[in-house]
Amino acid sequence: MPICVTDIPRPSQDIVKQYQGAEVATVHEAQGRKGLLAEYMRPIYRPAKIAGPAVTCEVAPGDNWMIHVAVEQCQPGDVLVVKPTSPCIDGYFGDLLATSLKARGVLGLIIDGGVRDIATLTEMQFPVWSKAVFAQGTVKETIANVNVPVTCAGAYICPGDLIVADDDGVVVVARNETETVLEKMNARIANEDAKRVRFENGELGLDVYNFRERLAAKGLRYVKYDEQN
Amino acid sequence: MPICVTDIPRPSQDIVKQYQGAEVATVHEAQGRKGLLAEYMRPIYRPAKIAGPAVTCEVAPGDNWMIHVAVEQCQPGDVLVVKPTSPCIDGYFGDLLATSLKARGVLGLIIDGGVRDIATLTEMQFPVWSKAVFAQGTVKETIANVNVPVTCAGAYICPGDLIVADDDGVVVVARNETETVLEKMNARIANEDAKRVRFENGELGLDVYNFRERLAAKGLRYVKYDEQN
Amino acid sequence: MPICVTDIPRPSQDIVKQYQGAEVATVHEAQGRKGLLAEYMRPIYRPAKIAGPAVTCEVAPGDNWMIHVAVEQCQPGDVLVVKPTSPCIDGYFGDLLATSLKARGVLGLIIDGGVRDIATLTEMQFPVWSKAVFAQGTVKETIANVNVPVTCAGAYICPGDLIVADDDGVVVVARNETETVLEKMNARIANEDAKRVRFENGELGLDVYNFRERLAAKGLRYVKYDEQN
Amino acid sequence: MPICVTDIPRPSQDIVKQYQGAEVATVHEAQGRKGLLAEYMRPIYRPAKIAGPAVTCEVAPGDNWMIHVAVEQCQPGDVLVVKPTSPCIDGYFGDLLATSLKARGVLGLIIDGGVRDIATLTEMQFPVWSKAVFAQGTVKETIANVNVPVTCAGAYICPGDLIVADDDGVVVVARNETETVLEKMNARIANEDAKRVRFENGELGLDVYNFRERLAAKGLRYVKYDEQN
Amino acid sequence: MPICVTDIPRPSQDIVKQYQGAEVATVHEAQGRKGLLAEYMRPIYRPAKIAGPAVTCEVAPGDNWMIHVAVEQCQPGDVLVVKPTSPCIDGYFGDLLATSLKARGVLGLIIDGGVRDIATLTEMQFPVWSKAVFAQGTVKETIANVNVPVTCAGAYICPGDLIVADDDGVVVVARNETETVLEKMNARIANEDAKRVRFENGELGLDVYNFRERLAAKGLRYVKYDEQN
Amino acid sequence: MPICVTDIPRPSQDIVKQYQGAEVATVHEAQGRKGLLAEYMRPIYRPAKIAGPAVTCEVAPGDNWMIHVAVEQCQPGDVLVVKPTSPCIDGYFGDLLATSLKARGVLGLIIDGGVRDIATLTEMQFPVWSKAVFAQGTVKETIANVNVPVTCAGAYICPGDLIVADDDGVVVVARNETETVLEKMNARIANEDAKRVRFENGELGLDVYNFRERLAAKGLRYVKYDEQN
Repeated sequence: MPICVTDIPRPSQDIVKQYQGAEVATVHEAQGRKGLLAEYMRPIYRPAKIAGPAVTCEVAPGDNWMIHVAVEQCQPGDVLVVKPTSPCIDGYFGDLLATSLKARGVLGLIIDGGVRDIATLTEMQFPVWSKAVFAQGTVKETIANVNVPVTCAGAYICPGDLIVADDDGVVVVARNETETVLEKMNARIANEDAKRVRFENGELGLDVYNFRERLAAKGLRYVKYDEQN
Repeated sequence: MPICVTDIPRPSQDIVKQYQGAEVATVHEAQGRKGLLAEYMRPIYRPAKIAGPAVTCEVAPGDNWMIHVAVEQCQPGDVLVVKPTSPCIDGYFGDLLATSLKARGVLGLIIDGGVRDIATLTEMQFPVWSKAVFAQGTVKETIANVNVPVTCAGAYICPGDLIVADDDGVVVVARNETETVLEKMNARIANEDAKRVRFENGELGLDVYNFRERLAAKGLRYVKYDEQN
Repeated sequence: MPICVTDIPRPSQDIVKQYQGAEVATVHEAQGRKGLLAEYMRPIYRPAKIAGPAVTCEVAPGDNWMIHVAVEQCQPGDVLVVKPTSPCIDGYFGDLLATSLKARGVLGLIIDGGVRDIATLTEMQFPVWSKAVFAQGTVKETIANVNVPVTCAGAYICPGDLIVADDDGVVVVARNETETVLEKMNARIANEDAKRVRFENGELGLDVYNFRERLAAKGLRYVKYDEQN
Repeated sequence: MPICVTDIPRPSQDIVKQYQGAEVATVHEAQGRKGLLAEYMRPIYRPAKIAGPAVTCEVAPGDNWMIHVAVEQCQPGDVLVVKPTSPCIDGYFGDLLATSLKARGVLGLIIDGGVRDIATLTEMQFPVWSKAVFAQGTVKETIANVNVPVTCAGAYICPGDLIVADDDGVVVVARNETETVLEKMNARIANEDAKRVRFENGELGLDVYNFRERLAAKGLRYVKYDEQN
Repeated sequence: MPICVTDIPRPSQDIVKQYQGAEVATVHEAQGRKGLLAEYMRPIYRPAKIAGPAVTCEVAPGDNWMIHVAVEQCQPGDVLVVKPTSPCIDGYFGDLLATSLKARGVLGLIIDGGVRDIATLTEMQFPVWSKAVFAQGTVKETIANVNVPVTCAGAYICPGDLIVADDDGVVVVARNETETVLEKMNARIANEDAKRVRFENGELGLDVYNFRERLAAKGLRYVKYDEQN
Repeated sequence: MPICVTDIPRPSQDIVKQYQGAEVATVHEAQGRKGLLAEYMRPIYRPAKIAGPAVTCEVAPGDNWMIHVAVEQCQPGDVLVVKPTSPCIDGYFGDLLATSLKARGVLGLIIDGGVRDIATLTEMQFPVWSKAVFAQGTVKETIANVNVPVTCAGAYICPGDLIVADDDGVVVVARNETETVLEKMNARIANEDAKRVRFENGELGLDVYNFRERLAAKGLRYVKYDEQN
């Protein structure tokens, strides 16, 4: 029988705070290129950027009942993650649910399904990353689990894991890795900032990264256009 | 042989006027969750919102000839609905046709195919909901029907039916149901406005909708994270 | 073994200059409706419009090494065209590469793959037309060809061909046809401008293009709605 | 509220009998190229070919309850047509329902959704045309309409309309057109049989259809490969 | 750094043996409708049916190097599960690897990517469930993990979990649930066998499942076609 | 204006003969992993395998007129390659055209569009590789080019290039490379045959290809399951 898990653990607020403003691509690299949700998860408006602990919510196809259960489990700063138990693009979520989540201080929604009322959500500046925009309504008949591990858009997400989302998409960081990923992320940002200056000054990646020798070793040959034979 | 039907009936202007500003999701709910076009019908710019009677137009794949025939059948306030007779994403429609439709007071275009010149259409603020944006040109060789019933993006649309479109997509209301749907829509809006206030005040859907007892009856159990087994 | 071709020919700067501001749909028509890239090639922000000679770059799936090689082959005013050797939507390109290309005066990127850092690219106003937005990182292990002919999103592109891209998508003009296409394009624009005035004045396409007789000859019949049988 | 319509009209058995063995492509042509379901409707095994009156059945996403209601409305020789009220590929139908339908003499199933147990269905030789094969189970919670008009895979189908399905896909013939389409179909078959003999004898379509003159008039030029310019 | 995990645990051979011949739909139901891989995972030939413990293998896009590492970890009766670290349909696997796996007694391959040489694989009767058939070759440059948990086609799979695959698709059973699922599966099969007899005898699901009263309570009305209004 | 090019060059019959029975994957590898058509090109029945020179044919969307022109340009042993000028899945080709092609000794059809009458084509054993099976009919109104270079399913094909197709898909070999590719292909086959024997004898790819040292150098570590930490 389905369960709703309460009192889930979350990363420390101090850690979460340092992820505010983080970029999905940077986080993804910093944790060894894992945890990305599928590319079809797109924000309903741009720019949008959030970071917070996941409350996870399964829903039956065409049935958004459990989202109401999940709302109660959300705390300020959380991100709600909704996963249909079979593929479904119905509009599970609209402006009333967004009003409720916003009143609780929830930062945004990640849903491997559809969303509706996006004009209002955009005005409210309540960000959603979804598989589809679709006005199709849902029923409230079937129960499912809240705050159990889910695979959402191809990623494995446990309640309390950290979700980072921006215009590029969505990435998840396992709760017990949030600290080490943060360190690597900061190192990476420093490194990229240094490189950016060199690129702005016109240096080539071939030189910045010392690629020329390795390319030659792999066999790359340079040929003039008129001398191709 | 194909026909162009003239003098189609339309809902009364008084009714149509009351749909201006209506939301697709609300209309869809008000009429019992039917009449939605497929989720792939997306507006070329946002926000966009229209409501008006349908002039329907079949086109052959890669052939936009009949759109010129349909333009003449349009009246101020109408919405042109174009359906290829086989799946086709060519750019059937561009800024010249939009100029022509705009000159006639047509509100927008719904096309289960492609559109082009979207930068200009955006500047003109002539809204289009389409399956694709594609610059591919079309020919003018094959005739087809104007103002006959069509299935467009999975919905059945008769000439004179009411089309409502916004950022969520497109919905059709059968002409003879426009009045009753309007009543249900207004009731629904009032109901939602009341609920919105409660959600803004932090009330939960679980309580607003009295879900707790029914969820328990279905078997939902609450379990603390640390006590899961 | 893969090669990097240098010193590619380009259309004259005088010709290229005249394509600035050209629309994809117009160019496509002017050259006889050929050269369009597939409709899935979408700009990461709108409006966006560029025209310039192609530097072509193959990349292995999940491997952006060769883009660094291609950057060196780019001149001010060029457009970089990247083609994975098998279908791949990874984020081959981000803000560092964009910084490098922008420093060289490159106008934009066409990639039959994925792109990331689109919030930053949008702020930088470095336009990209891509198949996907995806934060997935790539490696630097496998070499491939630079400045050889490629098929990109279904179009055949040789180095030095002219790329034109706008909100509708992307089109390629063969280098040796850039001059004749330009003439036809200008003629077409003049013709369309004249027609636009007529449409604005409320004339119908049926009359502007003299379609009525030919439609009747094809067998189109007009029938009043109430007299359909 | 949903309804189940009983005692639907059907085409005469004499007419239906003459459609046995008919090909979808031929029927589609004979009725003026309309009524085809989308190309994604594929048979679970091949060859398969059926023709019979439609019993139509709406189902909620992820909910196959109404199929049980529809079974009772089926007569020997019928074809069951199932349409989810929003897009869903769940496995609505398996070997138990097939056993039940087969016991009633139903010829096959058309479903704009998913099917499962296809190994058993193949052994039973109970043909299904579906959008997907998927083992995902469904619930029995939500009611919907039986024997009302539906749009299924893009086609408009009324209860009692004639369904013809074969390896090419599925087509629907409106009940009141079954007789006239039959005549045109038989004429078409005779015509094609005559042409087939000519093609087998090596005659060219250019001559069989007298295309040469019209092609020349359109401007087609023949050029030897070595004389192309 | 990537790791190859050795000496993974597996369900007892006695348990695995009892899953031979099991159907995916039945297993999916027996374990509470979870664990299904996405519907796009299709067998390269039919009929095909296997059950065995998973050896999991990550591969870089366009790079099948790690499959060779994984082969060594396979024991007789295992099923190899391959997951690209980003979406890729290249032909990672062909007849040589199949020969190697068959020599080790491996039962089949589940790959969220492409496969090639399917004519030979069919002759060899080495079954593969894949996302695509594609002859595109791969390189051997990038390492990744073997026998770590993966999400494959939307399902979470740990090394040693039980894979069951047939014509309907693929399902995974967590290693520590294989015993309880087996019991439920057997109960389910007995129940279905009893029902099948009743359906063969012409009983209706409405009666077999006692649906009539509940349908009426939900509001379903029966209306004769001629009395619809 | 469109042209039909006659008297195209072809590879020598001696060369073509040696490609009979060749596998697509092998040819693709032998020519340096290029020339593959997209993975969506699937045979209508299996097994199927052909090799022959291409006659190329453009068609307008929904218009198969030019196929009749192309038939006349075909010689015994040729393969007809059809490319819509914009994406279209209509059933351009059916049993009458197949009868005509078969009477001329044409080996099969490659079409980046739809095909119909596949039950009859299967009986006739006339193989087709297509993007879709769809009964939708086409018209004969618009001319296009025959025997000019085309991009078909993402590959660049010139008239007279060699097409090889089997259950894995379709590959093209440039006419002037058919001889050198043949040599590499034969070398490759010999090499694979030797390896196959070793794999059948239970040797591992890790040893057959000497991968162990290079994997270790890349950093792959072996860890026992129980010692993962």
